[in-house]
Amino acid sequence: MSGMPRKVCVVVASRANYARVKYLMKAIQESPKLELQLIVGASALLYKYGRVIDVVRQDGFEPNFQINYLVEGENLITQAKSTGMGIIELSTAFDTLRPDAVITVADRFETMATAIAASYLNIPLAHVQGGEISGNIDDSVRHAITKLSHLHYASSEKSAERILKMGEDAWRVKLTGCPSIDILANSDLALPPQEYFQDKGTGRVFDPAGPYLLVLQHPVTTSFGEGAQQITETLQGVKDIALPKAVLWPNPDAGSDDVAKAIREFQNDHRDLPFSYHINFPPEIFASMIANARCVVGNSSSFIREGAFLGTPAVIIGDRQHGREHGKNVVHAGYDRGDIRTKTLAQIEHGRYESEHIFGDGTAGKKIAVHLETAELRIKKRCTY
Amino acid sequence: MSGMPRKVCVVVASRANYARVKYLMKAIQESPKLELQLIVGASALLYKYGRVIDVVRQDGFEPNFQINYLVEGENLITQAKSTGMGIIELSTAFDTLRPDAVITVADRFETMATAIAASYLNIPLAHVQGGEISGNIDDSVRHAITKLSHLHYASSEKSAERILKMGEDAWRVKLTGCPSIDILANSDLALPPQEYFQDKGTGRVFDPAGPYLLVLQHPVTTSFGEGAQQITETLQGVKDIALPKAVLWPNPDAGSDDVAKAIREFQNDHRDLPFSYHINFPPEIFASMIANARCVVGNSSSFIREGAFLGTPAVIIGDRQHGREHGKNVVHAGYDRGDIRTKTLAQIEHGRYESEHIFGDGTAGKKIAVHLETAELRIKKRCTY
Amino acid sequence: MSGMPRKVCVVVASRANYARVKYLMKAIQESPKLELQLIVGASALLYKYGRVIDVVRQDGFEPNFQINYLVEGENLITQAKSTGMGIIELSTAFDTLRPDAVITVADRFETMATAIAASYLNIPLAHVQGGEISGNIDDSVRHAITKLSHLHYASSEKSAERILKMGEDAWRVKLTGCPSIDILANSDLALPPQEYFQDKGTGRVFDPAGPYLLVLQHPVTTSFGEGAQQITETLQGVKDIALPKAVLWPNPDAGSDDVAKAIREFQNDHRDLPFSYHINFPPEIFASMIANARCVVGNSSSFIREGAFLGTPAVIIGDRQHGREHGKNVVHAGYDRGDIRTKTLAQIEHGRYESEHIFGDGTAGKKIAVHLETAELRIKKRCTY
Amino acid sequence: MSGMPRKVCVVVASRANYARVKYLMKAIQESPKLELQLIVGASALLYKYGRVIDVVRQDGFEPNFQINYLVEGENLITQAKSTGMGIIELSTAFDTLRPDAVITVADRFETMATAIAASYLNIPLAHVQGGEISGNIDDSVRHAITKLSHLHYASSEKSAERILKMGEDAWRVKLTGCPSIDILANSDLALPPQEYFQDKGTGRVFDPAGPYLLVLQHPVTTSFGEGAQQITETLQGVKDIALPKAVLWPNPDAGSDDVAKAIREFQNDHRDLPFSYHINFPPEIFASMIANARCVVGNSSSFIREGAFLGTPAVIIGDRQHGREHGKNVVHAGYDRGDIRTKTLAQIEHGRYESEHIFGDGTAGKKIAVHLETAELRIKKRCTY
Repeated sequence: MSGMPRKVCVVVASRANYARVKYLMKAIQESPKLELQLIVGASALLYKYGRVIDVVRQDGFEPNFQINYLVEGENLITQAKSTGMGIIELSTAFDTLRPDAVITVADRFETMATAIAASYLNIPLAHVQGGEISGNIDDSVRHAITKLSHLHYASSEKSAERILKMGEDAWRVKLTGCPSIDILANSDLALPPQEYFQDKGTGRVFDPAGPYLLVLQHPVTTSFGEGAQQITETLQGVKDIALPKAVLWPNPDAGSDDVAKAIREFQNDHRDLPFSYHINFPPEIFASMIANARCVVGNSSSFIREGAFLGTPAVIIGDRQHGREHGKNVVHAGYDRGDIRTKTLAQIEHGRYESEHIFGDGTAGKKIAVHLETAELRIKKRCTY
Repeated sequence: MSGMPRKVCVVVASRANYARVKYLMKAIQESPKLELQLIVGASALLYKYGRVIDVVRQDGFEPNFQINYLVEGENLITQAKSTGMGIIELSTAFDTLRPDAVITVADRFETMATAIAASYLNIPLAHVQGGEISGNIDDSVRHAITKLSHLHYASSEKSAERILKMGEDAWRVKLTGCPSIDILANSDLALPPQEYFQDKGTGRVFDPAGPYLLVLQHPVTTSFGEGAQQITETLQGVKDIALPKAVLWPNPDAGSDDVAKAIREFQNDHRDLPFSYHINFPPEIFASMIANARCVVGNSSSFIREGAFLGTPAVIIGDRQHGREHGKNVVHAGYDRGDIRTKTLAQIEHGRYESEHIFGDGTAGKKIAVHLETAELRIKKRCTY
Repeated sequence: MSGMPRKVCVVVASRANYARVKYLMKAIQESPKLELQLIVGASALLYKYGRVIDVVRQDGFEPNFQINYLVEGENLITQAKSTGMGIIELSTAFDTLRPDAVITVADRFETMATAIAASYLNIPLAHVQGGEISGNIDDSVRHAITKLSHLHYASSEKSAERILKMGEDAWRVKLTGCPSIDILANSDLALPPQEYFQDKGTGRVFDPAGPYLLVLQHPVTTSFGEGAQQITETLQGVKDIALPKAVLWPNPDAGSDDVAKAIREFQNDHRDLPFSYHINFPPEIFASMIANARCVVGNSSSFIREGAFLGTPAVIIGDRQHGREHGKNVVHAGYDRGDIRTKTLAQIEHGRYESEHIFGDGTAGKKIAVHLETAELRIKKRCTY
Repeated sequence: MSGMPRKVCVVVASRANYARVKYLMKAIQESPKLELQLIVGASALLYKYGRVIDVVRQDGFEPNFQINYLVEGENLITQAKSTGMGIIELSTAFDTLRPDAVITVADRFETMATAIAASYLNIPLAHVQGGEISGNIDDSVRHAITKLSHLHYASSEKSAERILKMGEDAWRVKLTGCPSIDILANSDLALPPQEYFQDKGTGRVFDPAGPYLLVLQHPVTTSFGEGAQQITETLQGVKDIALPKAVLWPNPDAGSDDVAKAIREFQNDHRDLPFSYHINFPPEIFASMIANARCVVGNSSSFIREGAFLGTPAVIIGDRQHGREHGKNVVHAGYDRGDIRTKTLAQIEHGRYESEHIFGDGTAGKKIAVHLETAELRIKKRCTY
């Protein structure tokens, strides 16, 4: 069937997912040899997480399926159950859509659900962001997904090497860079005017014209229960630095309820301070927020990945990103307000870093799409040793 | 809480599962430092697969939970959905039992459900039979489970090495041999008298006193749809060999319906031939069936694993076990009745092989239990490279 | 949107379901004011139950969704879990298809799953076969579905009255007769030649040219565990009657495993007797089997419903249909081989009865479709008292 | 087994559930002939809804199972899916606990999940609050549960009559009053001191010493999408009345996200006004809040049920309680701020009403427990007509 475009199915299951695959989705959509199939599910459908699906639609993508499969609770158990629900529902969706390949991204439970459903249905699975190292259970999940995947689009040289070391065939691994970098390379990274932020959050209205710190700290699932204290140290650490702070809400990982609660308490206790709080931004605005910050503080992998390309000074806290490859823009701090304050001040003092292309040069989406047009889609795998 | 025994939870989800962990369950039960928790689920509850739970109870184990989570269909989709259902249900069970460690075995979808539920709940996961190579999707699933597991009890030296190469910490990997070998070392392997078999199957009544061939061939999930033809070649290949044949029903993998249907058709068309057909045996009887056969034919991993220890001549068909480590007792054949017939006759002619301890010496269950009594149960993992 | 046809979604989830709605599906398909949406799921997808979906396709219906949601076990627990799975999966399907009305039929757990998914999604629900009385849990389920439904297409006058008594608005209730009768009125009810039956079952090949008895007995879920004994009494009761017997496999209700096992044992012990065993027939063949039988024996509601129209003598066993409205063609017997034998002989002696139109005159499908074209689809309901 | 106490299993799945069965749970716990089994699940486990489980534990009840089965989204689809998840999980729990009877309360989707799981497992089901009328889909669900239940503990004479009219056997129906009234009869209904409220909400700290209005308005699932506007009319209607207002968060019904969002927006826009906002209270505090309010405004069934006993003036808004039996304390208003304001002022002016025992006299829990000690638990049901 040489004339038929290959059907490539992307599952967008969270805000972070979407930011990472948007440019890949565009590239698939633009390829005459590929046909994009889109499933939007889990937290990407929820108001609480900013209705990512509305942004997806505004960007010109129409989902084939919308599927709610997030079990409420944001604890370890509901995270597992959401994975189970995701597998059940995605199996039916994949069986209905019959894609030639499925794309899964990164390391979270929604990613795992996609990976299991696709691989058990004998649908070739392509993994973006495999082989990377962080300091979370995500690490184990990411590598488990590597072992289930048939094609690996690696973001960095080191992660490509790691995938090979784990026993994957060389022909299945391609170094493309990460599509999340494509967003940076394809937008002017100017922040919108203040009106945009008027009703996009609580606390002080964010002022895009002035300097600011950006804070985003996710719960760490392997130290479930300590998230509230961890974010509190961070907020206290930046509190007295004389810049406005924009704080972003965490992902719906196990423990995010705790983190959210601690943020709300901090907000309640410090209504006079120049903090603004935001649930969600479209990928471009989020990228611009990083690009224009004096310093970014927390444990978001974006601070490392996008941060390297943008040269934004970053203070990375705790062990969620422990061991992750990073550029010169990153310094690490413990869960300690004093340490966080000192390092953040030093980073502000230092100012912007030079751009590094560790995680790609902004053409990853296109490279992946071109590869998918003709890639061998062989489901039988052998460990190379 | 030095005085409290560690709670170790075993999930028995199929006939094959049980044979592999029975002696480990005994060893846990007998350890004063460990407490056995038992969940029996999926096909281990079904009449169709011989009600493994009844055997489990007769062996003196009382389940804490019985959970139906097999979605009917035995195709690729229901296999995925069963994994999803398993994760949902096992999450609740683990949360209720709160074990200190969970044991998962081998490579099938029930194993994956156990692995995901336990690892997402931050419960240390011990994997038996990791690092092995076969030629199925099972391979990918097995290695994915390795990446999710915190302790690895390897069956063979080569598989231990493979686990290390995949980036697991050396202290997490222990070469213990496989507990399925323990059954062989702890029973006299004599077959029960013919009365035992009187109502344990269909076709000709099996005669344990005489010589026979044993046939067991599972569907190969990565070539879903070809199972009927594959088993037919095997049955035709052994049909005219002048020995009675005992045929076992396949596992509930995707495709087993096809295989079962082809067996039924063969049975219908050849009612006069000396074939007996059996759904299930307790692990000891199954082991004795292998031990006393003139030759075993098919693709069961037991023919390789138990076969090496027992020295039973084996003809392994197709690629389900392709690449798996094996002893001298194994020859391979294609899905071709002529090839199967020739190799089987040659193996009968050769007669028994010497026992090899590739997969253990019959003390694996005890070694694992002793290790679990004091093993470090650290859930944070790092890839070693 | 006066120009848009109303989308009417039918869920076919079992053999019995399909026989009951086939002519309604045809009438919907043929109406220019209606558009048929079709979901095929649960046991209608399984080989074990004769792959009803293949028959559906041969009849010219193409499903929008195929969904596996039967949890294996055929016991009370898996029946409940299948309902749960059905609700989850059908919710996504309904949300994707967005029908203007959903049709649900009769009283089984798949029916309940459809009813709950549709009613919780605020989709108007039309129930066929509401208000009837049988002697099973099905009774409770049927009436519960009535309370969830927005339109009631009653098969008989008495059932229409019963629906009204339960507090439903008169405008929501319409006496149409049952679409299962339409099959009888629209086919010549001649049996196909013997070749057709050559490979359509086990045991003696069925001879459509001669006289025969038809046996179909389902498990009774409220006396779970007694099914094997119940069917055995029936088989023993008809065994020595000097006519060939055609035995049909039961539905996948809780307990069907027991019944099936007892049938298999009977078959094994009586290979010489003129019994043929069949898993499934297309609705027309099944109707012809009833039409041409000397007597039908068991507890299938078809023996009562289709039997009244066809005038086929019927011996109804046990309490599964206790209290159900019926015609003169029916006599009742206990679970007692002697009683069953005596009553069956008497019915054979009596011969055919006159046709009664208690459950419709063969135009139900069309009546329902015409009503659906313009029926008020109001989801807010009030009990009339 | 005359000596064994009957095991009675209660499922607490929400704040409202618990308030309704607390005194029944106490009565079961205190009966020597009954043994209480407790499952806490769904929104009763969530922080967002005030962690009802903590209150349950403080009251001296220890759950046998805690089960997360709420699918996040609070829309029509997730409500259906939560029902499905609940059925799956409760089936396993009931099969593990093997109760002699299960209690289910009222009309929500969690109630339906309990009813289906129990009835399909052939466990006698006792329904509290059957036969009542409100103006929601809850009505259909409530009556459907009646048709699935084996014992009916009616709260009022009219509802008992309605149950009988629906075809239930008279011996299965008992007029006991509602256990939610027991709370009122067994506590002094004094509000705790202001310190208690210090950190129990947002907005102005609630002052229990002074007069106040209480507002609680749930989304109406059959008019999904209009909840935000509906609550806004209510808040605007009471805004300028010169009393402090205590506003309670809605149930997790489909649409509650909308209502919650509208409350948050109102809160944001009116920070200076004397409004306090509360997620949850233990049943006694909630009862005291109603008892001591000058007027209660919204659509909570408690305003009708507890309100009748307490004589608290109530303004019931919209059609969620349309047609529900009520006392003299109730006046109705439309979704119209003017109407709401006028009626509320009139009710304040009127002052307290005399206590009416329409829904019980405070001994319902004991009556039900005593009945359950010896009630016939027959699962086979027949419609009485």
